[in-house]
Amino acid sequence: MKLWQKNITSLKEVETFTVGRDREFDLMLASFDVVGNIAHAEMLATIDLLTNEEKDLLIAELKKIYATIQNGSFKIQDDVEDVHSQVEFLLTEKLGDIGKKIHSARSRNDQVLVDIKLYLRNEIEQTVIAVQEFFNLLIEKSEQYKDILLPGYTHLQIAMPSSFGLWLGAYAESLVDDLNVLKSAYEVVNKNPLGSAAGYGSSFPINRTLTTNLLGFADLNYNVVYAQMGRGKAERITAMGLANIAETLAKLSMDACLYLSQNFSFISFPPQLTTGSSIMPHKKNPDVFELIRGYCNRLKALPNEVMMMTTNLPSGYHRELQLLKEHLFPAFTTLRNCIEMAGLMLSNMQVKEDIVEDDKYKYIFSVEEVNKLVLQGIPFRDAYKQVGLAIEAGNFSYSTKVHHTHEGSLGNLCNDKIVTNMQKTIHSFDFETYHIAIDKLVK
Amino acid sequence: MKLWQKNITSLKEVETFTVGRDREFDLMLASFDVVGNIAHAEMLATIDLLTNEEKDLLIAELKKIYATIQNGSFKIQDDVEDVHSQVEFLLTEKLGDIGKKIHSARSRNDQVLVDIKLYLRNEIEQTVIAVQEFFNLLIEKSEQYKDILLPGYTHLQIAMPSSFGLWLGAYAESLVDDLNVLKSAYEVVNKNPLGSAAGYGSSFPINRTLTTNLLGFADLNYNVVYAQMGRGKAERITAMGLANIAETLAKLSMDACLYLSQNFSFISFPPQLTTGSSIMPHKKNPDVFELIRGYCNRLKALPNEVMMMTTNLPSGYHRELQLLKEHLFPAFTTLRNCIEMAGLMLSNMQVKEDIVEDDKYKYIFSVEEVNKLVLQGIPFRDAYKQVGLAIEAGNFSYSTKVHHTHEGSLGNLCNDKIVTNMQKTIHSFDFETYHIAIDKLVK
Amino acid sequence: MKLWQKNITSLKEVETFTVGRDREFDLMLASFDVVGNIAHAEMLATIDLLTNEEKDLLIAELKKIYATIQNGSFKIQDDVEDVHSQVEFLLTEKLGDIGKKIHSARSRNDQVLVDIKLYLRNEIEQTVIAVQEFFNLLIEKSEQYKDILLPGYTHLQIAMPSSFGLWLGAYAESLVDDLNVLKSAYEVVNKNPLGSAAGYGSSFPINRTLTTNLLGFADLNYNVVYAQMGRGKAERITAMGLANIAETLAKLSMDACLYLSQNFSFISFPPQLTTGSSIMPHKKNPDVFELIRGYCNRLKALPNEVMMMTTNLPSGYHRELQLLKEHLFPAFTTLRNCIEMAGLMLSNMQVKEDIVEDDKYKYIFSVEEVNKLVLQGIPFRDAYKQVGLAIEAGNFSYSTKVHHTHEGSLGNLCNDKIVTNMQKTIHSFDFETYHIAIDKLVK
Amino acid sequence: MKLWQKNITSLKEVETFTVGRDREFDLMLASFDVVGNIAHAEMLATIDLLTNEEKDLLIAELKKIYATIQNGSFKIQDDVEDVHSQVEFLLTEKLGDIGKKIHSARSRNDQVLVDIKLYLRNEIEQTVIAVQEFFNLLIEKSEQYKDILLPGYTHLQIAMPSSFGLWLGAYAESLVDDLNVLKSAYEVVNKNPLGSAAGYGSSFPINRTLTTNLLGFADLNYNVVYAQMGRGKAERITAMGLANIAETLAKLSMDACLYLSQNFSFISFPPQLTTGSSIMPHKKNPDVFELIRGYCNRLKALPNEVMMMTTNLPSGYHRELQLLKEHLFPAFTTLRNCIEMAGLMLSNMQVKEDIVEDDKYKYIFSVEEVNKLVLQGIPFRDAYKQVGLAIEAGNFSYSTKVHHTHEGSLGNLCNDKIVTNMQKTIHSFDFETYHIAIDKLVK
Repeated sequence: MKLWQKNITSLKEVETFTVGRDREFDLMLASFDVVGNIAHAEMLATIDLLTNEEKDLLIAELKKIYATIQNGSFKIQDDVEDVHSQVEFLLTEKLGDIGKKIHSARSRNDQVLVDIKLYLRNEIEQTVIAVQEFFNLLIEKSEQYKDILLPGYTHLQIAMPSSFGLWLGAYAESLVDDLNVLKSAYEVVNKNPLGSAAGYGSSFPINRTLTTNLLGFADLNYNVVYAQMGRGKAERITAMGLANIAETLAKLSMDACLYLSQNFSFISFPPQLTTGSSIMPHKKNPDVFELIRGYCNRLKALPNEVMMMTTNLPSGYHRELQLLKEHLFPAFTTLRNCIEMAGLMLSNMQVKEDIVEDDKYKYIFSVEEVNKLVLQGIPFRDAYKQVGLAIEAGNFSYSTKVHHTHEGSLGNLCNDKIVTNMQKTIHSFDFETYHIAIDKLVK
Repeated sequence: MKLWQKNITSLKEVETFTVGRDREFDLMLASFDVVGNIAHAEMLATIDLLTNEEKDLLIAELKKIYATIQNGSFKIQDDVEDVHSQVEFLLTEKLGDIGKKIHSARSRNDQVLVDIKLYLRNEIEQTVIAVQEFFNLLIEKSEQYKDILLPGYTHLQIAMPSSFGLWLGAYAESLVDDLNVLKSAYEVVNKNPLGSAAGYGSSFPINRTLTTNLLGFADLNYNVVYAQMGRGKAERITAMGLANIAETLAKLSMDACLYLSQNFSFISFPPQLTTGSSIMPHKKNPDVFELIRGYCNRLKALPNEVMMMTTNLPSGYHRELQLLKEHLFPAFTTLRNCIEMAGLMLSNMQVKEDIVEDDKYKYIFSVEEVNKLVLQGIPFRDAYKQVGLAIEAGNFSYSTKVHHTHEGSLGNLCNDKIVTNMQKTIHSFDFETYHIAIDKLVK
Repeated sequence: MKLWQKNITSLKEVETFTVGRDREFDLMLASFDVVGNIAHAEMLATIDLLTNEEKDLLIAELKKIYATIQNGSFKIQDDVEDVHSQVEFLLTEKLGDIGKKIHSARSRNDQVLVDIKLYLRNEIEQTVIAVQEFFNLLIEKSEQYKDILLPGYTHLQIAMPSSFGLWLGAYAESLVDDLNVLKSAYEVVNKNPLGSAAGYGSSFPINRTLTTNLLGFADLNYNVVYAQMGRGKAERITAMGLANIAETLAKLSMDACLYLSQNFSFISFPPQLTTGSSIMPHKKNPDVFELIRGYCNRLKALPNEVMMMTTNLPSGYHRELQLLKEHLFPAFTTLRNCIEMAGLMLSNMQVKEDIVEDDKYKYIFSVEEVNKLVLQGIPFRDAYKQVGLAIEAGNFSYSTKVHHTHEGSLGNLCNDKIVTNMQKTIHSFDFETYHIAIDKLVK
Repeated sequence: MKLWQKNITSLKEVETFTVGRDREFDLMLASFDVVGNIAHAEMLATIDLLTNEEKDLLIAELKKIYATIQNGSFKIQDDVEDVHSQVEFLLTEKLGDIGKKIHSARSRNDQVLVDIKLYLRNEIEQTVIAVQEFFNLLIEKSEQYKDILLPGYTHLQIAMPSSFGLWLGAYAESLVDDLNVLKSAYEVVNKNPLGSAAGYGSSFPINRTLTTNLLGFADLNYNVVYAQMGRGKAERITAMGLANIAETLAKLSMDACLYLSQNFSFISFPPQLTTGSSIMPHKKNPDVFELIRGYCNRLKALPNEVMMMTTNLPSGYHRELQLLKEHLFPAFTTLRNCIEMAGLMLSNMQVKEDIVEDDKYKYIFSVEEVNKLVLQGIPFRDAYKQVGLAIEAGNFSYSTKVHHTHEGSLGNLCNDKIVTNMQKTIHSFDFETYHIAIDKLVK
């Protein structure tokens, strides 16, 4: 029997469909919901919608719930719709009518909005920490291998001398820019939507500046219609921020897969980190890098997915905004797993030391030879001709000692400058401010 | 005859295919190419690859070329491949061998890189200016109509009182966040790649810090491999920045199309700005808003397109990176046209003043009535019941005077705070610094 | 401690990362894996890689495993990597060395390929069945409401007379084209890749035509390199096929959300199927349609995601192809749930009967009045003028009885033709052929 | 002065913005518009909205216009909005009021719809022809090089013996599936929308079946609301069809770029077809393949762009649908150019004959050796051990003669089967039927 032939008065399917995976993702929001509740309670007491006594009772209970979340014992009961109801249910169970008062001057809508922003803020911070550690590893490895040359490619053709120092340092510097863009997402996220109610504010004389401060937000989304519009937008911009980091990792992984191919053999890994075959002893499948590449490329498609789901929705809340969690929330974990795995691979990578001694790569030094002559005073055109003739005559001689001195070249990586830029970027997030605020609330 | 049956020794088709639309887009890069050339010449003189006399001659010629670009008489000749060759050709035509010396210690590759970054920097600035003007208009209109109520919708259902002040102010505040994200794109763009040569640096003792300062860049892309990796990345991040602004405009346009529908009739426009019909006198087709919506939604697909074209390319230059210009460069003009048109529409918009007097919207005031009772001391639950019973009994009475006072609500729009945030954001771009630098180079 | 500081000889994390969610999705492939095994065993016996006795033993065991899958008791043990290993483990447990022989002349790679194709074939069929039932409902409702007029919109402006018959029938006809495109995906899927081994075939004299027939495939992927290339391609083309159906559902849902808005009020639903509010009695939030719209729009982003993950991968297997299952496999269930829910909503939809009697819609009849005059012999231009003058003078009179007779118009819906086309399309899938083959294998 | 400060009564900008690039793309539609006009005129005469004399006059003039389009002299005048107006203007100029009668029982909207479908039908046909020729070349080259071995890769690791025959044949077979999917797009396109008027049909007793036959459409879009819904949908499905072909070309190009890299050196090209360097004589930049890859990857992003622009638009016409032409129409030319260029490259490709003699590839034969032993009766496990031990002991011996016999393997490419499938697919398009119809109309 088709669903639509059944008696609708007793249909469970509608509830199942509309609740969807909300309860699963709501668990990830639980601690943030409690924190939002505490700030809201504090504020309500200042405008006499709670007495101080009621506030204290509520906050004491909320801290207990917070503790159960921290120790992993918090659950959303089967018959409870979402995390917000569960928290309210627990409060009411303990405090009766006082428990219900917490919902004054607020709607489910802005509660979800603030939970998601607190969640994204935390996840972005975790992402920054992971990126920073991986950055440090890249710099360390860039320094370690800075003197080992590598052929540089253009058009996938052997072209110019490069080095492991340059290769690894490039990805480090890439992450600085990536975090810089992520910071703009962080700034969009780190603004308080609480108080926008159903997206149109309310007639209660709430103090949104107070909750902004209590929750450690850098500012508020002033206009309440805009606060609501932040739904989908914060997700989109965050997804864009993650996509840039993902692209850096994916590109590194593509390079690594290529360099590990026997046709390059620039790098190798211990057998535990690749998949082999006893009758094809050369085979070292780079599954880890391939999966990083795949996960990261999938992540790069996420901003587009968010946009496809929100395009041409007029202003105001729409129910499908709930679905944006389903691919965005796990994206943080996926990205951090990829970073961890990339770190594991890189820290165990062995590099081949004499790559450029192979005759195949000799012409990468031809430009070097031309430049040497130019620096000796020979006009470029003549120098070029001279080297060209030597090559043609088969007596091109060259040195694999390369002397590059300018900023960012293989002889002068400027990793220190890159590190300084990274530190500045990370410092500018200023996570400390929000930690202090949240600690005050929950301690 | 199929192309592949022809004699390949005389094929024009290969050149046509590989040159593609490069010459068309190169014209947009011309002034930036000259500026890059001047900085490069200055630097070459400091490391003795040019004498001061040669440098002066070159720069004098470059300034003349710059003038032809400014007055519109600069052309790329039919037999010249690209703008870089055209500039070099003009220099050589005038200065002979000195003209050729400008290409020392540089490659076509980093010349393109720096041109694109200078171009993007300028286009981003123009975009910021256009957004700022549109923002001012939104704020002005928000203030003008701040007392005119509008029903607020959730789930496309009539829900709560809103106002034109809120609606227009929301889009203004949205643009603040959008520009904030665009600023991170600007920071990625505003770093100097010049000196990375073919992507692996060179053995010439060039001074990249000097060209960075001369060109007014905030910093340099240190690592030369990363500088090259910026190709595709700067385009992607810029496209993301534009996509956010586009989404704000597209959403506003969707709202406007809806509000102009006879089923809403919240707004109207003079006949010159809509398309009508003499036998369907009610018809006011919002073609302008529909086209803004379409152009902006297309623009939102651009970051994905850039990623599709660059995904899984290993590090190092690849020829297709040239193609990224074709949809990105026109996107700036399209977006600014959309902003102009949206401004034209909004500045001529008439709003309906008594919308909420229509009985259809009466229940948007029911929550207000409940809240009023609560603020008079009646417990929420009882207040809710009381209003519910009145509605049921058909004697729900309400006032369309709404008294909202909190930050960002319809009675307290906080447009001044939003304006302050916008000013801070725009100030942080610091375009002035680069203007001073460029002026010094070309004056 | 960072992962990369740990001792790699005992790392569980690498396995966890590389296995990922494979075991979860492999369970969905279990029955298809067994079916593929049976066909492979049959074939091996014909080329003397199995004796008939061995084959019979293997097939008997495989049928037992198949039964455990059907009754839900089949599990992949914790220490077993994937479904293929689990099946082989069970066979070997029972049959010793004979159990291992099943893996002759085959690789894990083509086993996965054939499992996925069998899975997709089955899921496409289930999708077709669901679409067909929903199509029947649309046609039924189109007929039921064929005489109830609806204003037709262009540019979201009230324009011309339409009808519920037209509106519902349009979505029915849309599904015919959607299934037609899905059929091309089915044809890509319904070709046998088995025998391609690791993507380069093998030196065993296997009979791929035989396994093609045994498995009820319409044809084989001949070229073994192409068979391997089908990975990612079958997924992409299937996702495209689903996206079209999703778009039809999403558009219908958008219409429904709009029509349910109080500003239209064209349709309504029983309270069980919408979300209401006791103090806003008009509120009927269409959560179900909003979620259908959201899920379906997400699904429309899936083909792009698949492409992002496979772009610029050279030919040959890459590990990330495994990840394509994670969003594609659940997409089938999601789409079918959406279809079920849309069916539930439509079958309980109440339509407003006298919509066009509202004065607001009167001008949709002006073109009708012009056409009537034209059909009476008055030149179009004069007729147009006459009606225009009447409107201007405020004495436009009209009838809401509309007489349209041409094919596909509101007076002549041609639903019978649309039904015939749907039947032809569904018939052309020819699922029967493969059912007969599979039944022979497992019975 | 900002646009919105200008006097709107005399603004040219609105017209410029709304017309956009329509006139440019309308020129591509001109011949199809005339054809649609002829069919419409024929039909009008059968329902007495034109006398036979009027019809004959109109058709005679339309044929003259058709001739000017064919010979390239047709223009859309500066003050004329679009191609439809231009045609009507020309008719009226010659025939006075009769010229205006052609627009009876039709709207601009369904005229555009039918023009686009006729255009897409023609472009799909041209694409099929180009694909077929390229397919033939691939088959020819596959046969030519069928005995030349190539290492096959998995995970970018050297894995198994492959061949140029397999490699090239795989792309040929890929095109068969691609065209099969394109055929479903063709079937969606090849249905007549004419008569849907503004998307809601009309009260004129038009004969849509007649115009369907006259225009050689296979069927009609019956439901007029669905006919209108085809706008955006036909474009999306066509773009999907092109994307599949593009992906096949892009993958081939990626392979070619890799194989041309000096680290592989499997293939080479005459100097005219690559870009070299006199001091890096090994350098053979595969610009053509890189550009094909880039154009084709861009094309793969097109279906997503179309969806982004049409998502969540309710049913009925919206103005932005006009914009879909701008990236879709040029996509056909781009794809065909890419096919031509790929053909040019392949037909001039030189393959290296003794690749697998290189010691680097020896282990690709290890599985062959194991299989040989198995076929001699040695149990797989023992055979595997024996070869493994030989490898370990350094005395692995092997033959580079590979004997694969099964369907689609390197010794039995089954190119004949693939050719047969291609022929069937192309035959099923049945372009002839529409050619006969159109020829009747315009001759």
